[in-house]
Amino acid sequence: MAYRLSELVEVLGKHGLPCVVEGEAGREIAGVATLEDAGPGEISFLANPKYEKALQTTKAGAVIVSREQTAPEGMTVLRAADPYAAVTVVIIQVHGYRQHPKVGVDARAVIHGSAAVGEGASIFHGVTIAENVKIGRNVVIYPGCYVAREVRIGDDCALYPNVVIYDGCVLGNRVTVHAGSVIGEDGLGYAPVKGKWQKIPQVGVVEIADDVEIGANCTIDRATLGRTLIGRGTKFSNLIAIGHGTKIGQDCMFVAQVGVAGSVTVGNHVTMAGKVGIAGHLNIGDNAQIAAMAGVMNDVPADSRVAGQPAAPIKDAMRSFSLVQRLPEIHKQIKRLEAEVESLKRALESKG
Amino acid sequence: MAYRLSELVEVLGKHGLPCVVEGEAGREIAGVATLEDAGPGEISFLANPKYEKALQTTKAGAVIVSREQTAPEGMTVLRAADPYAAVTVVIIQVHGYRQHPKVGVDARAVIHGSAAVGEGASIFHGVTIAENVKIGRNVVIYPGCYVAREVRIGDDCALYPNVVIYDGCVLGNRVTVHAGSVIGEDGLGYAPVKGKWQKIPQVGVVEIADDVEIGANCTIDRATLGRTLIGRGTKFSNLIAIGHGTKIGQDCMFVAQVGVAGSVTVGNHVTMAGKVGIAGHLNIGDNAQIAAMAGVMNDVPADSRVAGQPAAPIKDAMRSFSLVQRLPEIHKQIKRLEAEVESLKRALESKG
Amino acid sequence: MAYRLSELVEVLGKHGLPCVVEGEAGREIAGVATLEDAGPGEISFLANPKYEKALQTTKAGAVIVSREQTAPEGMTVLRAADPYAAVTVVIIQVHGYRQHPKVGVDARAVIHGSAAVGEGASIFHGVTIAENVKIGRNVVIYPGCYVAREVRIGDDCALYPNVVIYDGCVLGNRVTVHAGSVIGEDGLGYAPVKGKWQKIPQVGVVEIADDVEIGANCTIDRATLGRTLIGRGTKFSNLIAIGHGTKIGQDCMFVAQVGVAGSVTVGNHVTMAGKVGIAGHLNIGDNAQIAAMAGVMNDVPADSRVAGQPAAPIKDAMRSFSLVQRLPEIHKQIKRLEAEVESLKRALESKG
Repeated sequence: MAYRLSELVEVLGKHGLPCVVEGEAGREIAGVATLEDAGPGEISFLANPKYEKALQTTKAGAVIVSREQTAPEGMTVLRAADPYAAVTVVIIQVHGYRQHPKVGVDARAVIHGSAAVGEGASIFHGVTIAENVKIGRNVVIYPGCYVAREVRIGDDCALYPNVVIYDGCVLGNRVTVHAGSVIGEDGLGYAPVKGKWQKIPQVGVVEIADDVEIGANCTIDRATLGRTLIGRGTKFSNLIAIGHGTKIGQDCMFVAQVGVAGSVTVGNHVTMAGKVGIAGHLNIGDNAQIAAMAGVMNDVPADSRVAGQPAAPIKDAMRSFSLVQRLPEIHKQIKRLEAEVESLKRALESKG
Repeated sequence: MAYRLSELVEVLGKHGLPCVVEGEAGREIAGVATLEDAGPGEISFLANPKYEKALQTTKAGAVIVSREQTAPEGMTVLRAADPYAAVTVVIIQVHGYRQHPKVGVDARAVIHGSAAVGEGASIFHGVTIAENVKIGRNVVIYPGCYVAREVRIGDDCALYPNVVIYDGCVLGNRVTVHAGSVIGEDGLGYAPVKGKWQKIPQVGVVEIADDVEIGANCTIDRATLGRTLIGRGTKFSNLIAIGHGTKIGQDCMFVAQVGVAGSVTVGNHVTMAGKVGIAGHLNIGDNAQIAAMAGVMNDVPADSRVAGQPAAPIKDAMRSFSLVQRLPEIHKQIKRLEAEVESLKRALESKG
Repeated sequence: MAYRLSELVEVLGKHGLPCVVEGEAGREIAGVATLEDAGPGEISFLANPKYEKALQTTKAGAVIVSREQTAPEGMTVLRAADPYAAVTVVIIQVHGYRQHPKVGVDARAVIHGSAAVGEGASIFHGVTIAENVKIGRNVVIYPGCYVAREVRIGDDCALYPNVVIYDGCVLGNRVTVHAGSVIGEDGLGYAPVKGKWQKIPQVGVVEIADDVEIGANCTIDRATLGRTLIGRGTKFSNLIAIGHGTKIGQDCMFVAQVGVAGSVTVGNHVTMAGKVGIAGHLNIGDNAQIAAMAGVMNDVPADSRVAGQPAAPIKDAMRSFSLVQRLPEIHKQIKRLEAEVESLKRALESKG
């Protein structure tokens, strides 16, 4: 749907993001695009100064910029205190979220007689729903998904194609799971018996709270006993592995390829950047920020930032990183010192 | 099924794990749970002293503890030399392993006329079995699995939903593959020809020996020629990548997100912790233990433990780690030394 | 199909790889195998001197070796300047590439009426093709694949089982995607609003150019706006994650478990070894080579090689690695120096 710039300004104002237009306030905007791709019917934005040069060449009909940004002569700009927040609102307004087709309960889906599916659900062909599953209202389940026995799924959830939920797991409301993710597979639970690995039955489940979004091809182990827990509002990217019995707090954000071992407790608002690894049985405090590729081997206090392998407070880690890179120079320094000490010794001896 | 504590003691004795009950030996136990979750009809355990505090507040009907553990007044405890081994036996006894539904060969499965499926198999709807596949007895294959032509699968295997086995691969007996894993995809085999990559046909297969368990969303490359091999009794967690032609020994355990490049030979009883990476063409000896996130660039001798990137013997790696973290302090030490040497020089010169 | 050695020499000559046979040029070759596995009707090769010992014990009917290689008495060898290039040609000639069954458009595939499928396609049962999808000629799509609305797929592509392509994504010609990979899932795009994460609609798509091959269980995020791009001829191994809006050049090769964050620009002919991580918004120049497990936090210039975490030029990184491993020794050196300086000071003082 198309909007005049002036209408978008009104929408932004309602979101607490007051903006002003410089230029053609009546211009019609039918889409949002990057500076590189945008045409005259589209709006773009500049939030990262790294991309400032593109402002000179963009064909965008209008650009959201900061209060201070200088803009080329004749360009229609929409000035906002926080261009990133503003463009988010504009994308939502102009494009909206992905609409799922309404297919009802497809007759080709394989649904056990004991399962209950709420109103408004779209259960596609090629879905399997096993014994005693309970599914809430307006849930969308795409082809190739397998929902094992005793699973409970709340309202307004979406499972993209080929998601597998093992037996007994529980999803809250408004949970989204992207394609190929597996929830509730057995964890790596074995006891050593005479040089072989004896499997320990994995009796627990996974519980995913409301408003969680899980990326593609993730794996979340069920608990050996009790629950593996993903807290309300937490967001995962792709290829993330969560070990058995781990409890993740609320409103966390985990970037791709993060791995958290078993029996870890993660607080609220924790950020883990790409490829972070967390060893088992640790506590990660609220608001902790873990830098990309960090290897965490000890508890992380609340409100702290860590980096490195093994992870250390980020300032220390950065200083260590930089000194490691200066090691060749430091090594020369030491050799020079040794030579000087040697010559001092000789000088002193010669003075007898 | 519920058991009296005295009956569980008997079972444990038969497993070579003699225990004694202090308290109510006649108490009925219907389940095993964590100290946090257990109720009066459940048994719990304390193996990791980290969780000792929970012993004070648990509502468990009984708790398996070590010989020496002090326990709260009035708590029924089951004392064992190895509480972890004991609770494993109790979980198996009380809960047992996951039971797969018996569905026979579902008429909606797509099975090529030339394929042979053994007695007692449960082949679900939504399974594809291609030309000349041979499947043993009592095999369970869940919906969404694809078994390509010429694959051979032994007895008592389980393929969870959406597993894909490429053409010609071989699974032994009692092999379990969790959801979404892919066995036998082409490895990264290309020859550079005039600045482009020419694909080398990947003619080999993957062979998985008896009693192997593969986690969810793993990928095991077929060999270019010959076989990629996973040895008897080896256990994989999730999101593990094995390169083409690599041969893994028996009774190994690999934690999530391990990656082993091609043409590697791994011995028996090797442990790789989370996110370990092994470069191509290396030998990893029997019983080697590779710490989490280690990057192995050289052969690892049998019975050794390595850590770090690049991996080194664990003692050396730990000393290096700790010195890296002390580098800022070491750097100051050096500066202090330089200053002192300088002042010594001047003092000596002043003495002319 | 079987070939005489003399015929293979002819084929190699036509590929610009002149070879000579020493021994039985009329020997029939029906397959290519490793030195370990090959029998008298098979040809093998020796390219990596590490495996030279196997030349003594192989039962291969003939072996491709280098010009200089000494070979056991009586062995039929085919001498080539580049044994690896030669065996590649021989594998292609003797074994060829995997042939996909020709199944036409299976009546059990679920194909929306508005979708168009080109001539010669093999669309298996269990495939879903949604609204307005356009699929070229001779495309093979295996069971369990889901092709969302508005996707365009060129000619001669192959999607192995359980591949998911999200709405609007574009694949060129001769693109291969291995089992379980997901193309075009939403990226990790959220704006912080009052301590919670507000989802930003992910409006962009993924575009994959001609001749790309994607391994198994990879995940390629769609762009927030515009396109995530995988350039012509690029090859991916398994479990690779590409962030939203990232643009990968032509003829790159990425090994398993590589992760590239969002908004990265990667040039042509770039190699990333296993588990490499690239932070967001960086530029990686043409022909760059990134060593296994490197963590790239800064732009990488064209034609350079980097290693380490954070990544540095490989020579520096190697020197730093080696000095880190010598840190215990260096630390002792410093302590020795301190002691000597101390004793020098005392000696000087004693001289008054």
